Amino acid sequence: MRILITGGAGMLGRKLLRRLLERGHLRGEQITNIDLVDLVQAPLNSEICTAHVADLSCRGEAEALVDPAPDVVFHLAAVVSAEAETDFDKGMAVNLDATRLLFEALRRCPVSTRVVYASSIAVFGAPFPDPIPDDFHPTPLTSYGTQKLIGEVLLADYSRRGFFDGIGIRLPTLSVRPGAPNAAASGFFSSIIREPLNGLPADLPVLRNIRHPHASPRAAVGFLLHAAELDTAQFVRHRNLTMPAVSVTVAEQIEALSRVAGSEAATLINDCFDPAVAEIVTRWPSRFETTRANALGFVADESYDDIIQAYIKDDLH
Amino acid sequence: MRILITGGAGMLGRKLLRRLLERGHLRGEQITNIDLVDLVQAPLNSEICTAHVADLSCRGEAEALVDPAPDVVFHLAAVVSAEAETDFDKGMAVNLDATRLLFEALRRCPVSTRVVYASSIAVFGAPFPDPIPDDFHPTPLTSYGTQKLIGEVLLADYSRRGFFDGIGIRLPTLSVRPGAPNAAASGFFSSIIREPLNGLPADLPVLRNIRHPHASPRAAVGFLLHAAELDTAQFVRHRNLTMPAVSVTVAEQIEALSRVAGSEAATLINDCFDPAVAEIVTRWPSRFETTRANALGFVADESYDDIIQAYIKDDLH
Repeated sequence: MRILITGGAGMLGRKLLRRLLERGHLRGEQITNIDLVDLVQAPLNSEICTAHVADLSCRGEAEALVDPAPDVVFHLAAVVSAEAETDFDKGMAVNLDATRLLFEALRRCPVSTRVVYASSIAVFGAPFPDPIPDDFHPTPLTSYGTQKLIGEVLLADYSRRGFFDGIGIRLPTLSVRPGAPNAAASGFFSSIIREPLNGLPADLPVLRNIRHPHASPRAAVGFLLHAAELDTAQFVRHRNLTMPAVSVTVAEQIEALSRVAGSEAATLINDCFDPAVAEIVTRWPSRFETTRANALGFVADESYDDIIQAYIKDDLH
Repeated sequence: MRILITGGAGMLGRKLLRRLLERGHLRGEQITNIDLVDLVQAPLNSEICTAHVADLSCRGEAEALVDPAPDVVFHLAAVVSAEAETDFDKGMAVNLDATRLLFEALRRCPVSTRVVYASSIAVFGAPFPDPIPDDFHPTPLTSYGTQKLIGEVLLADYSRRGFFDGIGIRLPTLSVRPGAPNAAASGFFSSIIREPLNGLPADLPVLRNIRHPHASPRAAVGFLLHAAELDTAQFVRHRNLTMPAVSVTVAEQIEALSRVAGSEAATLINDCFDPAVAEIVTRWPSRFETTRANALGFVADESYDDIIQAYIKDDLH
């Protein structure tokens, strides 16, 4: 069982690698090789792993990485939403061209590779029904969402034609993200939990009644593994699936923080309304009806309390 | 007013050109130049027209065509459904790469060009509700539909970013198509009308209860012109619109033929059920609820009788 992880040095790639090494097997077979590729060196902690530093948007890189052919590819590499918006050409190169070059390289492989593609709820754009059903049309309002959607559409056609065996999973916002706060407009969803747990203050730029779908990084790794093992004969025609999530308001996030870490933790959150951030966030989806993913056995965190506990167990040092 | 028509030598491009020359103006301005581009020489009948023979999927061709910058582009060039299915790489090159290269060239233009993009109801794939509403998710089941959908998604993002001012129109099946029967699975929708009107027999490979959406080529030209003149400020976020159509069963098509041309015409139709064609056709949409396009003033033919009359007037010699 050969595995390739693109974006292997990223937060999700590192967590996926750790879980794969703990399990030792995938799809009923022993994992013998894991190749990781990213623009920077991925940290390695096993002799079955090889880290490659490469830009997949350059012709020839993907071909080299899929020789010998991987049995499973986790395609996580992406320029994030904010950067794809400020640097359109970079987003197109990494999120679209690299995806297509990878898909083309896999098409030429002698085996039918299971491709697990990390898509995003950014493929949806307001106005929405609440909840958003599985058959609602994606109309992205960012270049990131546009590029992720194109990847989904290509994945579906490459799979329909038998070039590979793909599954796209639309991830909700991952929280609680470990590490330093980032510049993403969604960053506060994690920082209002993470910073207080670390004894630090955190700014809340939106009203507390804002509702949003969340998954822990641990649940996201679970989605990726389940997608890798799923029997695609069940799919028929829909290769891209919105993942289940915990849909909570900011107030409910903070109540969970108080239950898990005590009510003092919540006093470290400063309400400082930022109209620019608030306006962006009101255009995001708040809730999904994930009938198809549920029927296929994808499982979200049970509650936002569990999402906080996952952070404490996996990332709080 | 400079106009560029890609696919200018095709059936729809030629009819569009004729209508533009009859009108003499577009968007309230006199038409001074019409550039046509296609893989073959477009027939010319006016000194304001220039025909270019070029392959838009080759780098540099689109840049040359948009210098000086056109005010309106009608992007009709495409590899048709059957060919995009048998020759995947050609479909990707013409339907996807050429579209992206054209969009990139227009992005670099000093003016904000109105881009009218001919998309297709092939972006939809079964299973469907009946009728299909405007917010139903597109899940194409052909490479042609996949490529057209990617063009739509790019058009929306390029327009959102202000690179140009685009509108995508999803055309239903065009009937009655002039000329010889073609190999397309949908060809019989036209030939069962066209051949009897020309005194020739025609094969009907599906059951007469099959329902399908139709527009005359004349109505399709009307959609293109309306899209060129529309005030896009009304659109807000949805740049891609399913066009209204006349949804009729094959039996209703044949009844219309009898009304227009006499009952003997219909005796030239031979029911010869072809399970392969019938199976393809049952996966096609039969009816749409085109609320958005209707509200924006797009107008379908009034009846299938009118569709036949348009063929007789415009194409029957």
